[in-house]
Amino acid sequence: MRNFSFFERFSKAFQDHPSLTRIIVVSTISGGGLIAYSEANASYGVNGSAAVVETGTRKKKVVLLGTGWAGTSFLKNLNNSQYEVQIISPRNYFAFTPLLPSVTCGTVEARSVVEPVRNIGRKNVDTSYLEAECFKIDPSSKKVYCRSKQGLASNGKKEFSVDYDYLVIATGAQSNTFNIPGVEENCHFLKEVEDAQKIRKTVIDSFEKASLPDLSDEERKRILHFVVVGGGPTGVEFAAELHDFVSEDLVSLYPRAKGSVQITLLEAADHILTMFDKRITEFAEEKFSRDGIDVKLGSMVTKVNEKDISAKTKGGEVSSIPYGMIVWSTGIGTRPVIKDFMKQIGQGNRRALATDEWLRVEGCDNIYALGDCATINQRKVMEDVSAIFSKADKDKSGTLTLKEFQEAMDDICVRYPQVELYLKSKRMRGIADLLKEAETDDGSKKNIELKIEEFKSALSQVDSQVKFLPATAQVAAQQGAYLAKCFDRMEECEKNPEGPIRMRGEGRHRFRPFRYRHLGQFAPLGGEQTAAQLPGDWVSIGHSSQWLWYSVYASKQVSWRTRVLVVSDWMRRFIFGRDSSSI
Amino acid sequence: MRNFSFFERFSKAFQDHPSLTRIIVVSTISGGGLIAYSEANASYGVNGSAAVVETGTRKKKVVLLGTGWAGTSFLKNLNNSQYEVQIISPRNYFAFTPLLPSVTCGTVEARSVVEPVRNIGRKNVDTSYLEAECFKIDPSSKKVYCRSKQGLASNGKKEFSVDYDYLVIATGAQSNTFNIPGVEENCHFLKEVEDAQKIRKTVIDSFEKASLPDLSDEERKRILHFVVVGGGPTGVEFAAELHDFVSEDLVSLYPRAKGSVQITLLEAADHILTMFDKRITEFAEEKFSRDGIDVKLGSMVTKVNEKDISAKTKGGEVSSIPYGMIVWSTGIGTRPVIKDFMKQIGQGNRRALATDEWLRVEGCDNIYALGDCATINQRKVMEDVSAIFSKADKDKSGTLTLKEFQEAMDDICVRYPQVELYLKSKRMRGIADLLKEAETDDGSKKNIELKIEEFKSALSQVDSQVKFLPATAQVAAQQGAYLAKCFDRMEECEKNPEGPIRMRGEGRHRFRPFRYRHLGQFAPLGGEQTAAQLPGDWVSIGHSSQWLWYSVYASKQVSWRTRVLVVSDWMRRFIFGRDSSSI
Repeated sequence: MRNFSFFERFSKAFQDHPSLTRIIVVSTISGGGLIAYSEANASYGVNGSAAVVETGTRKKKVVLLGTGWAGTSFLKNLNNSQYEVQIISPRNYFAFTPLLPSVTCGTVEARSVVEPVRNIGRKNVDTSYLEAECFKIDPSSKKVYCRSKQGLASNGKKEFSVDYDYLVIATGAQSNTFNIPGVEENCHFLKEVEDAQKIRKTVIDSFEKASLPDLSDEERKRILHFVVVGGGPTGVEFAAELHDFVSEDLVSLYPRAKGSVQITLLEAADHILTMFDKRITEFAEEKFSRDGIDVKLGSMVTKVNEKDISAKTKGGEVSSIPYGMIVWSTGIGTRPVIKDFMKQIGQGNRRALATDEWLRVEGCDNIYALGDCATINQRKVMEDVSAIFSKADKDKSGTLTLKEFQEAMDDICVRYPQVELYLKSKRMRGIADLLKEAETDDGSKKNIELKIEEFKSALSQVDSQVKFLPATAQVAAQQGAYLAKCFDRMEECEKNPEGPIRMRGEGRHRFRPFRYRHLGQFAPLGGEQTAAQLPGDWVSIGHSSQWLWYSVYASKQVSWRTRVLVVSDWMRRFIFGRDSSSI
Repeated sequence: MRNFSFFERFSKAFQDHPSLTRIIVVSTISGGGLIAYSEANASYGVNGSAAVVETGTRKKKVVLLGTGWAGTSFLKNLNNSQYEVQIISPRNYFAFTPLLPSVTCGTVEARSVVEPVRNIGRKNVDTSYLEAECFKIDPSSKKVYCRSKQGLASNGKKEFSVDYDYLVIATGAQSNTFNIPGVEENCHFLKEVEDAQKIRKTVIDSFEKASLPDLSDEERKRILHFVVVGGGPTGVEFAAELHDFVSEDLVSLYPRAKGSVQITLLEAADHILTMFDKRITEFAEEKFSRDGIDVKLGSMVTKVNEKDISAKTKGGEVSSIPYGMIVWSTGIGTRPVIKDFMKQIGQGNRRALATDEWLRVEGCDNIYALGDCATINQRKVMEDVSAIFSKADKDKSGTLTLKEFQEAMDDICVRYPQVELYLKSKRMRGIADLLKEAETDDGSKKNIELKIEEFKSALSQVDSQVKFLPATAQVAAQQGAYLAKCFDRMEECEKNPEGPIRMRGEGRHRFRPFRYRHLGQFAPLGGEQTAAQLPGDWVSIGHSSQWLWYSVYASKQVSWRTRVLVVSDWMRRFIFGRDSSSI
């Protein structure tokens, strides 16, 4: 987090001296360009020999499904020449999805946020890529069945199968329509680069349409009514971007449209940005109201027709709103191939693939799942409490001394992170406090030895702290990096396991389980203002956070190419505004 | 032409010190950015008040059809607040078409070569734009009928009409398939930005397709066989760009494709680039043969099937070639709306709208046509020879003295540029030489007075020099600028006409007729080599011309925004190569 404070201080300086900022950005780019040049030259031809398989010992074949955050992060971090990675995805590029809302309005170009997957990955790992979509996973024969995106009608070979030794599933999720009628047909989504490009074209087309002669005022207003459904970070950022695009660029070019443009944000809950701190939510709602963005809280969409959208308030009142364009950004759903696979392995009634804490799909061998298509099924302490007790009770006395408990505690905390979270949430400093709590329940006990019932009682509340990870790029990227590290040291850790003690078995787990480190989250609110929520309840809102946002997003780019392009797109926007050509 | 020689000298310096070039480009951009910033700020909101019509004297309504080279040049140069310009075009942007071949391979991005038409035009001229396609011109009621690109199903008002006082037709042309079966369905064209984007995606898709498993070698070779039909500048440049893209960027990323890629250029004539000097043609053919581009001369395409293209040699031999992608770039044809209009005004059997030398459509009032949709019908001297003689014969003596002839000569040369061309082509220094030639035919005459027959004889050959202008961006742009100047000074020149004497009427023409100044032409041949043919038979081929090409194309950009973008795209390509993401 060093970057954060550094840039934070800088951005405050910029706020006071706004003229400085542009000069500094310009010089940064020039410098960046030179560094980028040397790096790019060094890394060229990375995958040139990807298809060559080493003779001698057979390489393990890892099939990676997906080129999103999780898959790309896995690929970028895998650094062991014993593997041969076969990437399969319908998208031959990685897309920096957090910038998609910027792409919808041309603040950043589509091509600046994508990097060909063939450019990603280390020199010493053989990787090859197939542009195809996996439509069936067969764990019994260790095969995945794929279909080419493009028709290969000649020999009819549109489908093929690929064998694997290890399968890494990182296919992501799809937009969720909640089966509301008309959503699929009439709404824009914002998951893929193509979606963002389509939205951009539709916005411009709406303005052109509204400039045609012989339109009634009512019809012009309908055409220029942009509705965003979903008050999460994506929906909010898109609404803010659109507002900026309209007020900074379009209104001066389309004088007839002035006064007819309306942006409405529909949110089913009582507030927008509910995953953020209350201060941010309040600021965002106030800013949107100042900007003239109509935020309708507690509005549940019930139906979407070709020209109007019906929403129900909490009171049960249904109203129909005429619209020109809807962007639907309410949450994620399961992809068909994953749904199908879940049925096969007896997880049919879940929302996403369940994995253990090592990202292994439950009930399968050598299959891993990460990112939005998976959730980690954190093992509950209470399920294992007897096993934990007997492991900790080294002298098999039937009771646990404080010392024994303390010795076991490290392994317990690694294996069951909810214990640590529980201690934190109750502001306890250690196990002694935990035991004390159990005692107070009891009221009388003073001796330091615990029986199994007292142990259970002490831990009875900890599982309430089990948390599901959010479906964010940050989680997916950390999971990808974690899994790559596990793969890198598979052999090494087989011999010298480094994980916690196995509670229900012998020895230790090979690896420490995956642990998510939340680095903070941004919510850009338009007008060069961003809300940032950093770890430790640290909240920052305004122009300074916008500069923090620029810095973090530039530094997180997957390649120097995209980094230079994104930063120069920002500069271009500062200087020339956004382009309104309808392409 | 000052720029040319300046850059020419520079580019030669670069050739000797190639490391210099990148540094200079970098500093140029930095400087450009700053200048661009001030200019962009100054010109913002240009069209903000475009729709407001001045009260008092009614403004003349100019309807401009088309936003290509001719229309945009007209718009950019028109500088008279008495007009109100209504632009109608299905494309709300101007595209710098000479860079389209670069867009096909990502050397330059699509968005870098377009500029919204609403940003073009002077502050003091009221302009407004409608995104619609004109489908009917009615000169009798002075109306054009238009159709919106987008369905406006609500009130069914997809069609509307617009009145005009002056109509400027600059709709351009469309690709010509010569009615060869299968071309429309199976070939890519290269006229619009969307075409270039589609070609780019298809090229990448072909490489992805060829990387799929279970493909026979034969099928892989077919998929990677790129065929270009037409050896004109566009076809040649595309073939060269594609060759560079494949050899510089794709081959290292797609190792399986290596050795299977083939580019073939089919040309019906005996040589490619026939409009250029023979030295350029020869160099291009040799370079392509070294590069492995298969140039098949004298090949007439007869039919295009889904997977193979049939061509006939001059000997009558028909061969069928399997292909993966075809780019069709053989010439231009007439758009339906122009064809229809030509029928209405009795020009049904022509290829393009005939105009007089002042760009006025023949047989119409207040309708002008320019660019690829029109041709200038140069009045022949021999048609007017009697009128010319009697105008020149001021003393009405029935004979022409040398003095009388000389006095009339200026007007004749302006009105009939072929006279001047004839003198030049025969290396004559003046009229005396022309008369001498007439004399030598006669053999005996020594007196300096000409009768009408001798006058006719002297001028009998000059009409052979009438030349049709090529359908190029350069011609269109010059015509647009010329017409804008005529419009600017319409009233002024009505009172004080500045054109030549009317041969078949009284007084003078209002304006001097349009005269094309050829500034030279480029043919980029790939590998940072370009052939340039400049006026005065000046030919330059190689890296130096490439730098000249860069300079000229950068300087000719319509706005500072596109200039900066195009130059930074070139830099990006130098540093990072071309992107191969399939978007």
